[in-house]
Amino acid sequence: MRYNRITPEIAASLSEIVGENFVIYNDPERLEPYSHDEIPEKKYAAMPEAVVRPRTADEISRIMKLANEFRFPVTPRGAGSGLSGGAVPIHGGIVLHCDRMNEILELDKENMMLTVEPGVVANDINEFLKPHGLFYAGYPMSMETCYIGGNVAENAGGGKAVKYGVTGRYVLGLETVMPNGDIVWFGGKLIKDVTGYNMIQLMTGSEGTLGIFSKIVLKLIPLPRYQVDLLCLFKSSQEAINIVPRIITGTGIIPTGIEFMDRTACREACEYLNESIPYQDSGAMVIITVDGASRENVESEYETLGEMCMENGAIEVYVADNVTTSERIWKVRRNIGEAYNVISRRQSGEDIVVPPAAMAQMVEKLSQLAQNFGVMIPCFGHAGDGNLHARIVSDPKWSDEKWHQVLPEILERLYKLTSELGGSISGEHGIGHKRKNYMPMFVSDEYLNILKSIKKSLDPNFILNPGKIFDSL
Amino acid sequence: MRYNRITPEIAASLSEIVGENFVIYNDPERLEPYSHDEIPEKKYAAMPEAVVRPRTADEISRIMKLANEFRFPVTPRGAGSGLSGGAVPIHGGIVLHCDRMNEILELDKENMMLTVEPGVVANDINEFLKPHGLFYAGYPMSMETCYIGGNVAENAGGGKAVKYGVTGRYVLGLETVMPNGDIVWFGGKLIKDVTGYNMIQLMTGSEGTLGIFSKIVLKLIPLPRYQVDLLCLFKSSQEAINIVPRIITGTGIIPTGIEFMDRTACREACEYLNESIPYQDSGAMVIITVDGASRENVESEYETLGEMCMENGAIEVYVADNVTTSERIWKVRRNIGEAYNVISRRQSGEDIVVPPAAMAQMVEKLSQLAQNFGVMIPCFGHAGDGNLHARIVSDPKWSDEKWHQVLPEILERLYKLTSELGGSISGEHGIGHKRKNYMPMFVSDEYLNILKSIKKSLDPNFILNPGKIFDSL
Repeated sequence: MRYNRITPEIAASLSEIVGENFVIYNDPERLEPYSHDEIPEKKYAAMPEAVVRPRTADEISRIMKLANEFRFPVTPRGAGSGLSGGAVPIHGGIVLHCDRMNEILELDKENMMLTVEPGVVANDINEFLKPHGLFYAGYPMSMETCYIGGNVAENAGGGKAVKYGVTGRYVLGLETVMPNGDIVWFGGKLIKDVTGYNMIQLMTGSEGTLGIFSKIVLKLIPLPRYQVDLLCLFKSSQEAINIVPRIITGTGIIPTGIEFMDRTACREACEYLNESIPYQDSGAMVIITVDGASRENVESEYETLGEMCMENGAIEVYVADNVTTSERIWKVRRNIGEAYNVISRRQSGEDIVVPPAAMAQMVEKLSQLAQNFGVMIPCFGHAGDGNLHARIVSDPKWSDEKWHQVLPEILERLYKLTSELGGSISGEHGIGHKRKNYMPMFVSDEYLNILKSIKKSLDPNFILNPGKIFDSL
Repeated sequence: MRYNRITPEIAASLSEIVGENFVIYNDPERLEPYSHDEIPEKKYAAMPEAVVRPRTADEISRIMKLANEFRFPVTPRGAGSGLSGGAVPIHGGIVLHCDRMNEILELDKENMMLTVEPGVVANDINEFLKPHGLFYAGYPMSMETCYIGGNVAENAGGGKAVKYGVTGRYVLGLETVMPNGDIVWFGGKLIKDVTGYNMIQLMTGSEGTLGIFSKIVLKLIPLPRYQVDLLCLFKSSQEAINIVPRIITGTGIIPTGIEFMDRTACREACEYLNESIPYQDSGAMVIITVDGASRENVESEYETLGEMCMENGAIEVYVADNVTTSERIWKVRRNIGEAYNVISRRQSGEDIVVPPAAMAQMVEKLSQLAQNFGVMIPCFGHAGDGNLHARIVSDPKWSDEKWHQVLPEILERLYKLTSELGGSISGEHGIGHKRKNYMPMFVSDEYLNILKSIKKSLDPNFILNPGKIFDSL
């Protein structure tokens, strides 16, 4: 697939559509921030030829029509907090930045639904909802910065998914600009709807390759009035991870979230934050969150869960039943990634997912892998979902050459182990272009051909975010 | 699109694939049961030319390849309990019946997952799971007869969807025979997975037009140890339905299900069953179900909910806290359809869905509609989801001619009212061929073109269940 360059004439047409203040062109310094997402490695970056910041669906529609006419690629971008290179314009063309489409459009309290534009920051949604006693239960770890549009595009997971599921569960309606410029509504203010194919869930997680969202209708739930986090310390990663599949089967309780951090991940985050949660005597920890509408129910649930952990080898279970203590624990959990960025920029943040009961084996294999290759693989993630953020971090003494030589071997090995356990390549970060070459280790050619057929049927010119998930044809 | 007839040669090839005992051909009497689903009206029926009952994915694959070679349509069929004509072979060809693929293949207790074949009866799944303390939370009203494969194909809803969601939430893996005969796995034993497009949710609810499922991996939950149903009587339909959107917003509790029955629906079902639940003094009733892992939590929740109903105009709230009483109530709810089949076969069972807060208006409009046209429209359904099974029943004194003349007018009017309230044409029964002509009242041409593009990309010869959801091209 060959694309045309963004000429001054095309740039002028783009300015005509969105206003010249909202086009960046011929300005490398201002274009540079749009060349990468949160992957620290330079090799996944690529410069856009222009950045365009539309305000309306109609403007996006006109941009898509122009792109089809002149055959240049369009790469949509939210907050750029992704971890798979999804917002990186690897074939050049324009980055379509949704930052100006950032209004909360309507709170419908009676229906418990919220309509937002894609550029609203995820956390702002819940700050807005709190006084109304309502809650949006999508909860990615980057919620302080990420946009809801990106959450939908990636079908973001997060720390509350065991009980509440991932982003897709809360998307009821999508006004979408299709690759050909058509503006189409999928769904609406409906809790259930089987009118036609489930386009909402096809679009959710399509990584910006099938459409650009201009309005999103979210399902809300009552704000859980009580929440408690249990910080459960175990002697070893094995003992900690072993408890995870037993939590639900053993108690009948479905907690809000079950997170895992090994000791090194926790230590680095604590040092980075100058925080002191009591990890020193433990080899790994599990955070179990419980929430609900009644204090008594939450109490009885966390007591059952805490006892269950103590009976299964926990050294100690700390109860964080107030916002301050909870926030201290979660801040550590959320900042593990940042902490390792300080140690070495040479790293590869993986997002593997395995059947929950295979996690103990996976953690053991990751530890052997780290030893064998002489790297660090701190391990943390959404253990309740089988989703482990194994982060391969270079020995700081290594040269760039050595790192780039060894990393592909490690990844190949890591993915092979994951695949052997029935796992998959990404639980929530997406494929983007970072992982696309490894897709054949997990899915069949027939599977990939199906994805490509769907892409081609909706975007025959491969205009929208080409080269993501699979190579453009 | 023109199809070829099933010749004796093709029938012989089919026999070669599945064995001659499992092909029905040239035998109108044995073919007739496959000409319809549970829609009582004859006009939605169509005879198959042959019925084929494969045992394996490989056999289905060979059938699909044969169908593409000789261009005959294949209509997959589960238990035939559908209500949209989805399993009716309107272009002739063969019905592919999944009844022999009826094994529960594997219970994976540690991962809380179950792998089944498509022909397993939904209720048998839960009977099988009960001794293990596990539960499959998809719960269609026809669960005593319907097949899980059909549930997935239609993305079936049911009576527990308010808390547990619909079928799709529990589908983790699908071995699927694609229209071209490829056998492809989507997903697996993974709670979260964003590897490629969300093919599982595209396939779920695709009404047998995009693929035939040969293995299904279901997510299980702990069997809720305690369950209570509240039967809440109200003076009028309006008062009953008014409470529905307030149940969750007012208490912060998300009940398992919130069902609605108006007085006439309840009375007919009671008479049909010779049952006597205390509906006499009321105009409508709401069934609120609460379940959970602890008796105390369930009790505190149903007390809060019961008080809430009493404060909002309920005449009486009966508590059904044992299986026998619960089953009496639910049997009434499940048999409303059957009861009306006795009154008149001239009826049209609709499945509209509206935003929950618009239900009171919808119920009022349905009542006016019934009066205006001189028909009965008993109203019942999954009120917590905004899903109303408005069933248009002919005055028994009408002639067939009159009914067929008036029904399209009623439907047109009914759908217009639904659309005006932001509703949609089907909450859980699907479009099939019964509702496809009304799709343009709810969705745009662009929307329909997207569905058709996807269909064409995966089934270029329009072999698989053609003429459902939209006309074959």
